[in-house]
Amino acid sequence: MTADNDTGLSKRAATVIPGGIYGHMNVLEFSDTLPQYMVSGQGCRLTDTEGKIYLDFMCGWGPVVLGHRHPRVQHAVQRQLEQGDCLNGAAPVMVELAELLVDTIAHADWALLAKNGTDATTACLTIARAATGRRKVLMAHGAYHGAVPWCTPVNVGVTVEDRAHLDYFEYNDLASVHAAADRAGDDLAAIIVCPFRHDVRRDQELADPEFARGLRALCDKTGAALILDDVRCGFRLALAGSWEPLGVRPDLSAWSKAIANGYALAAVTGTEALREAASRIYATGSFWFSAASMAAGIATITELRDTDALQNIQRAGQRLRDGLAAQAVAHGFAITQSGPVQMPLLHFADDDDFALTRRWCDEAGARGVYVHPYHNWFLGSAHSDDDIDEALRHTDAAFESLARNR
Amino acid sequence: MTADNDTGLSKRAATVIPGGIYGHMNVLEFSDTLPQYMVSGQGCRLTDTEGKIYLDFMCGWGPVVLGHRHPRVQHAVQRQLEQGDCLNGAAPVMVELAELLVDTIAHADWALLAKNGTDATTACLTIARAATGRRKVLMAHGAYHGAVPWCTPVNVGVTVEDRAHLDYFEYNDLASVHAAADRAGDDLAAIIVCPFRHDVRRDQELADPEFARGLRALCDKTGAALILDDVRCGFRLALAGSWEPLGVRPDLSAWSKAIANGYALAAVTGTEALREAASRIYATGSFWFSAASMAAGIATITELRDTDALQNIQRAGQRLRDGLAAQAVAHGFAITQSGPVQMPLLHFADDDDFALTRRWCDEAGARGVYVHPYHNWFLGSAHSDDDIDEALRHTDAAFESLARNR
Repeated sequence: MTADNDTGLSKRAATVIPGGIYGHMNVLEFSDTLPQYMVSGQGCRLTDTEGKIYLDFMCGWGPVVLGHRHPRVQHAVQRQLEQGDCLNGAAPVMVELAELLVDTIAHADWALLAKNGTDATTACLTIARAATGRRKVLMAHGAYHGAVPWCTPVNVGVTVEDRAHLDYFEYNDLASVHAAADRAGDDLAAIIVCPFRHDVRRDQELADPEFARGLRALCDKTGAALILDDVRCGFRLALAGSWEPLGVRPDLSAWSKAIANGYALAAVTGTEALREAASRIYATGSFWFSAASMAAGIATITELRDTDALQNIQRAGQRLRDGLAAQAVAHGFAITQSGPVQMPLLHFADDDDFALTRRWCDEAGARGVYVHPYHNWFLGSAHSDDDIDEALRHTDAAFESLARNR
Repeated sequence: MTADNDTGLSKRAATVIPGGIYGHMNVLEFSDTLPQYMVSGQGCRLTDTEGKIYLDFMCGWGPVVLGHRHPRVQHAVQRQLEQGDCLNGAAPVMVELAELLVDTIAHADWALLAKNGTDATTACLTIARAATGRRKVLMAHGAYHGAVPWCTPVNVGVTVEDRAHLDYFEYNDLASVHAAADRAGDDLAAIIVCPFRHDVRRDQELADPEFARGLRALCDKTGAALILDDVRCGFRLALAGSWEPLGVRPDLSAWSKAIANGYALAAVTGTEALREAASRIYATGSFWFSAASMAAGIATITELRDTDALQNIQRAGQRLRDGLAAQAVAHGFAITQSGPVQMPLLHFADDDDFALTRRWCDEAGARGVYVHPYHNWFLGSAHSDDDIDEALRHTDAAFESLARNR
C-alpha cells in the first residue's frame, strides 16, 4: 500500500519519523498490499484506515495470543487503571504476577519484570555474568535476541566491543556448541538459545531434543547458565516453558510478547541458584513497576491456564496448515510449512529469495489475509474454525492467481 | 515499613522476586517509614495497602507530571483502548504524536518512539555512531543515563568492553570535557549530558550556561553529536527542551518519564542532519508501536502546551522551597535546597552521608509526605497551594521532631 491510500499518514510520517517508519513494522520491507497503519483490532480481525478488514495471522507480531481486546484482559486493565498504574511503589499485582509466573513456569523460582523482550534477554546475560564471574556467552548464528548493540541484526552504529564476549554456534549442531564452549574455556558464563530456530528468511527448524539435552548437559558440566529466549514462543506453545515438552529446563528464561496479550511487559524467570545474582544486578526502568500491564499479565496467563486456549491455537494452526497443504497440491505448487503450527511459516520450493512467497503473501494480503513472507506468523485463540476456513478461501484464490500467472 | 504492615506483600515478594524488590523502587534503600506497595493514586495523593494516604512528591519517580489519573490522559487512553493498542501496524496516533513532538521540541525534525528511557539514550548513542562512523562517547562522572551494561550505576555483571568507548568529564567543567575530547581525537562520536546535574547522593547543580554553550561549540567544531538526556527533566521544566532557556540546542534528545503522564513511552528526537542515520539503525520492540501510550503522550503534551500546568508546577515548587527554608531557619537547621524548584532536593548541612536528611524524610514519611533523602523529588501540576501548605504542616512537625531529639 502506498501513501495514497492511507489517508496521507505515510506521507506525513515521512516528514517526522526516520525512514517514515522503523523496526519490524516497516510494511514496505515485506509487502506491497498490506497497510502501514491500522486503526483498530477485535478478536482476530484488524481494520485499516480505509475500513478494510484483515484476518490477522501476525497477532501484533506475537503479543496478541487471546485476540485483540480480549474481555478478561481489558477488564483487568480497566479495573487497575481505575486504581492507579505508575505509582511510587509496586502495586499488589506485582507480587501476584510474580507468584503466578513461579507457579506456572516449571523452572522458575523467582521473576523479575520489565518492558521489552530485549530488557529480559539483556538482564539474563547480566545475571549469568554476575552469578558466574565469567564473560563469554554463546548464541546461534542468525538468532534474534533483541535490538540493542549486543544483539541487533543490523550492524549499524554497533562497535566490535559491543559483542566482544559473544561467540556463535549452529542451531541443532551440538558439535559446534562444544567447539564454541572450548574456545570460551573457563570464561563461559551462558548459552542463550531460542526454543526453536525461527530466524527470518529461512525455513523454521524445531529443536532436536538431543540438541536441547546436550546444551543442558554442557551447562551442568561447565557451570554456565542455560538461557532460554522464550520471548517469541512463550505463552503460545507450552505454558510451563517451551522446552518443557522436551524435558529440558533452563536456568534463566526471557519472556515478553504474549505474556500480557499486547500490554507492555517482559519478564526474566530463574532458578534458586541464580536468585542472589539477580538481586545484585541493577536493572530498572521508569515503567517497570506499572500496574496495569501486570494486571493484564495475570489475566492473560490465568485465561491460558484455565481454558483450552492453547489447544484452540494448536487446532486452528493445524487446520490452517492442512488447508494450505491441500491447496498447494491442488494448484500444483510445492511448498514447505515449517515450525510449530501455532507459529507457522509458508515457503514456496525453489524460492530462496522468497520472491514467489512474497507474491503469494501479497495476493493473500490484497484479499484481507495478513501473513508475512519470511517471518513466522502467529496464531491466537481468537481464530475459530470459521475464521480459518474464511482465510483458506482467500489463500486458495491467492494460489489460483499465482497458478494463472505461472 | 516492614513486611508486617503491608498485608504480607513484602514477605510474599521475598519468595518470588529477587531481593524482594529490585531497582529504584526498593524502598528499604532509602526509607524506614514509607511503604513498598501502593494501591492507588489520584492527583497528588497515593494510598497504601493499609489505606494510609501520602502527599506524593515523587510523582511515580517523574512520569506523573499532571497528577495520577489525569482525566484528559485517562480519557485518551480509554478511547484508544476501545479501538486497539498492539496492532500489526502503527496506529494513526503514532504520526500525530511524532508531529506534535516535532512541533513542540525546538531542535526536533523527527521523532523515534520506544518504551524505556534507556531505550532512548541507547538509541542516541547508536545513531550518533552510525552518523559519524566514530565510536567514543563522553559522559559526566556519576551521571545516570540508564540501567543496562553501558550505563548502569551498579557495576555487577558488566564487562570492561561494555564501556570500552566511554570516557568521562566533570559536569560544569569545560576543561575536563576538552581533555576527554582530546583523548577521543578523531573518534569522537557524541557527548551525552543531562540538563542539570541530578546525580543521586549529592546536591544538585544547575548547568552553567557557559558549560552548555561550550559543549555545543565543541560538538560543532568536531562534528560530534550533542545528546541531551532529557529523560528525567523533559516535559517538566521547559516544554521545548530543558536547555532551550539557555539557548543551547542538542542534535539528539532522549525523552521518557513525563512524556505520557505515566504510560510507558520514550522518544528520541533529532535534527535533520541525523535523520538518515536514525533511519539506518535497527531499534524496535514488541510494544514500541502500541497506540494507547501514544494517545496518552498526545494528551499529556497537549495539556502541558495549552494550559498553565508548567507554571503551576513551578509555583508549587517555589512555595514548597520557600516554606521549607523558613521552617529550617525557625527550627535552627542549616539546609541546602538544590536543583530547579520543580525537581528539588533538600539536604541538611554537614550531612555527607545523608543520615540526618534521611531521618527528616522518615519523619515526613511517617506523617504522610512522600519525599526522598538523596534522589531529587518531583512536583506536578496536581499540587495546589493547599496541598503544599498541608505538606508543609507535616514537614514542620518533622523539623520539630528532629529539633527535639537534637
